[in-house]
Amino acid sequence: MAERIKFVDFIIFSLLLTGIAYPITGHWVWSGASAWLFNLNGDAGGFRDFAGSTVVHSVGGWAALMGAAILGPREGKYANGRTSAIPGHNMSIATLGCLILWIGWFGFNPGSALAVNETVPFIAVTTNLAAAAGGVVATAVSWLKDGKPDLSMVINGILAGLVAITAGCDAVSYWGAVIIGAIAGVIVVYSVGFFDSIRIDDPVGAISVHLVNGIWGTLAVGLFSIQTGLLFTGNPQQLISQVVGILTIGGFTVLFSTVVWLTLKYTLGLRVMPEEEIQGLDIGEHGMEAYSGFVKESEDILGLSSMNAISDFDNLPKESV
Amino acid sequence: MAERIKFVDFIIFSLLLTGIAYPITGHWVWSGASAWLFNLNGDAGGFRDFAGSTVVHSVGGWAALMGAAILGPREGKYANGRTSAIPGHNMSIATLGCLILWIGWFGFNPGSALAVNETVPFIAVTTNLAAAAGGVVATAVSWLKDGKPDLSMVINGILAGLVAITAGCDAVSYWGAVIIGAIAGVIVVYSVGFFDSIRIDDPVGAISVHLVNGIWGTLAVGLFSIQTGLLFTGNPQQLISQVVGILTIGGFTVLFSTVVWLTLKYTLGLRVMPEEEIQGLDIGEHGMEAYSGFVKESEDILGLSSMNAISDFDNLPKESV
Amino acid sequence: MAERIKFVDFIIFSLLLTGIAYPITGHWVWSGASAWLFNLNGDAGGFRDFAGSTVVHSVGGWAALMGAAILGPREGKYANGRTSAIPGHNMSIATLGCLILWIGWFGFNPGSALAVNETVPFIAVTTNLAAAAGGVVATAVSWLKDGKPDLSMVINGILAGLVAITAGCDAVSYWGAVIIGAIAGVIVVYSVGFFDSIRIDDPVGAISVHLVNGIWGTLAVGLFSIQTGLLFTGNPQQLISQVVGILTIGGFTVLFSTVVWLTLKYTLGLRVMPEEEIQGLDIGEHGMEAYSGFVKESEDILGLSSMNAISDFDNLPKESV
Repeated sequence: MAERIKFVDFIIFSLLLTGIAYPITGHWVWSGASAWLFNLNGDAGGFRDFAGSTVVHSVGGWAALMGAAILGPREGKYANGRTSAIPGHNMSIATLGCLILWIGWFGFNPGSALAVNETVPFIAVTTNLAAAAGGVVATAVSWLKDGKPDLSMVINGILAGLVAITAGCDAVSYWGAVIIGAIAGVIVVYSVGFFDSIRIDDPVGAISVHLVNGIWGTLAVGLFSIQTGLLFTGNPQQLISQVVGILTIGGFTVLFSTVVWLTLKYTLGLRVMPEEEIQGLDIGEHGMEAYSGFVKESEDILGLSSMNAISDFDNLPKESV
Repeated sequence: MAERIKFVDFIIFSLLLTGIAYPITGHWVWSGASAWLFNLNGDAGGFRDFAGSTVVHSVGGWAALMGAAILGPREGKYANGRTSAIPGHNMSIATLGCLILWIGWFGFNPGSALAVNETVPFIAVTTNLAAAAGGVVATAVSWLKDGKPDLSMVINGILAGLVAITAGCDAVSYWGAVIIGAIAGVIVVYSVGFFDSIRIDDPVGAISVHLVNGIWGTLAVGLFSIQTGLLFTGNPQQLISQVVGILTIGGFTVLFSTVVWLTLKYTLGLRVMPEEEIQGLDIGEHGMEAYSGFVKESEDILGLSSMNAISDFDNLPKESV
Repeated sequence: MAERIKFVDFIIFSLLLTGIAYPITGHWVWSGASAWLFNLNGDAGGFRDFAGSTVVHSVGGWAALMGAAILGPREGKYANGRTSAIPGHNMSIATLGCLILWIGWFGFNPGSALAVNETVPFIAVTTNLAAAAGGVVATAVSWLKDGKPDLSMVINGILAGLVAITAGCDAVSYWGAVIIGAIAGVIVVYSVGFFDSIRIDDPVGAISVHLVNGIWGTLAVGLFSIQTGLLFTGNPQQLISQVVGILTIGGFTVLFSTVVWLTLKYTLGLRVMPEEEIQGLDIGEHGMEAYSGFVKESEDILGLSSMNAISDFDNLPKESV
């Protein structure tokens, strides 16, 4: 929802999502004896999501999906019947952000053991293998698909691998982690294209990373166990529990976030004015320039600008909410 | 003192401050039986500063205050009777710097336990609560005060909360940490305005963060104890010790740094030439451009520049030291 | 080899170096009873390289040296008989990269203990001392040599100190670590000048950091032992083992990488077209701009550009491979 949502809506939604929705669905899984999803099917295999492929990532992903659909695409993104790339302004910072997330995941997954014991290094290794596999495979897939190795897909592939391994990082074998990450790297490239094709504008691929690969990673738990190596564990009850968890948590989150987004849309309004969107939310929402002192193409009085969003500005529909 | 001090002065002052002044005042607090401030008042409550709100941060803050006063404001900052914002050139990097400091504080505060024991996670939590509270409150205060949520105040609020909790991170309750950080978030916003009003030019708000909130955090030790929860601990002797520590360490540091800054001013000279200041110290002091290859507004031959410092250059006083 | 090598060659070479060459030479040192270099000279002192000044860094450095020599310099770097600086475009990010490497080295060196024991903090201190000494000395040397303290040399000095201490971080005294780092800081400044003088174009000084200081650090093991403080340990057998290790590992790596680079040169071709090189490999190799939306000097239609590489473009030799 970046680059067009009002800052105040983002804060209100974040408070409601993290204050109400996350605790409810988290309770279904991580509250011990009272966690109905965890205890589903009795001893036959309840819902398992170690550090939150579903509980954390797909909840955020569903909220983002509903928000992006209700908010609508950025100005010019799908103008004139085609999808225009609106490139990121600083790929060095984007790559650095990926690196920071990758390092941070070593706190997130191993730290979810809530103890310093021998599972910590094991989880660190499965986490790292999935991230690396996701990055390598997404690079290769984007290269084959589009003719160039796309840096934004390298980044998204790494993050997709990390999200996907989060559910099973304590329970799958090393080779299982590689396969989970590799498949995440394939999924994320095609998922980004899919959401563009249905005109859900997701500037950073967050829905493909967190929602789609959160689902994939949750399903993958139990497909690759520590005990049996590469083989399917042969526990259909487990797989059923995973599907039940994905659907119930997803259904609740879609309902919750749709109600909140629509309430915000028809009260405060979700979207900044088109003029503010073109100028940049750093100026409109925060009263400062992110990169003061540099000449930007959008300020270029000689008309060298190549950004569709700007050159097509006069032809844009103005009815944004 | 950024953007106008000679690099050589900065190095000499840093050597003297860290080689002479810090060890002396640190010895008053952290040297066990011979630490007169720590042992003040006998058993009734000596000066307490666990990881250095005063010993580290306010010492640096006093040195910066005297330095900025002696050095004078940047060219154009207070020209024509009004305060001109000279915006930072890269808010992404500034935000990242704040994140790195926040993460680093988990080494700084818990690490000051000098042991791996059960106080480490406790201190990590108080540290984090104060940082978060400072950031949230400074965002809200700057929004109410100036009409926009100012990113530089989000950053300064987080750092203010971190500085303020540093003295009492081992001794205050969780709610105490939240209150300490929240008050720090209020203080920092008004403190930045105050120093501009008395024409002390502090480009990054370092005096407000490190000195003012170092003092606040030191006073706050003992107001919120682990034992009594939210309540004032009712130990006036403790508070007297804190005030004595703040005043003696502050007095020594002000004296020390004034002598050193003035000596540097009348020997080497503290300040670069105005032409070098406008052009940038990357070029003048270090012989290289920080952002080579980008077109900057200051190089813009078409006169689009909006920086007061530059457009007012011909009218600037030239008598800088 | 940055800014002119084809991405596909870089990937293929990396796979071969890390898949074949590193394991072979690593096996010579780090495989216990079967490590012939480690067990050289029996009890008189075999080859010692705790975390890889030679095994990791100089292997990479030899590969880079051969690659840079075979690839040739960037367009315009040594045009018209003089060496033109082609400055980095973002020194903030470069400095941040140095900081990340420095922090990461605390995982790399102490982590190579493969245990959590009392050697870990000892190695952290020697590592940090060498890095700091390297940075301080390289700053001073570049200041004396060129008249300005060069930020890129501050960065290279820190990294040189880190590379040099890697071999002996567990075995040298604290003062030994300071001396090793300080000498690394001198070496790196003159080494960068040396490689420019023989027209090996190394945009980031990687050969000087990793190869030259990897050799220095390996030789320094045993010069400064924990037991004897500052004194030479007086074990010529140890020094002979270090020289044998440097020469055999270096010889193997030079042979291996020369064969691979030349094979790539005469099959796929190593180098991008001159037009792509001038435009930037972000666009040519990856199909995206690293800094989209900013006006770059190379796009400046008014001809303000000061980059030699660009203004001399029409006079460049076009025979790149």
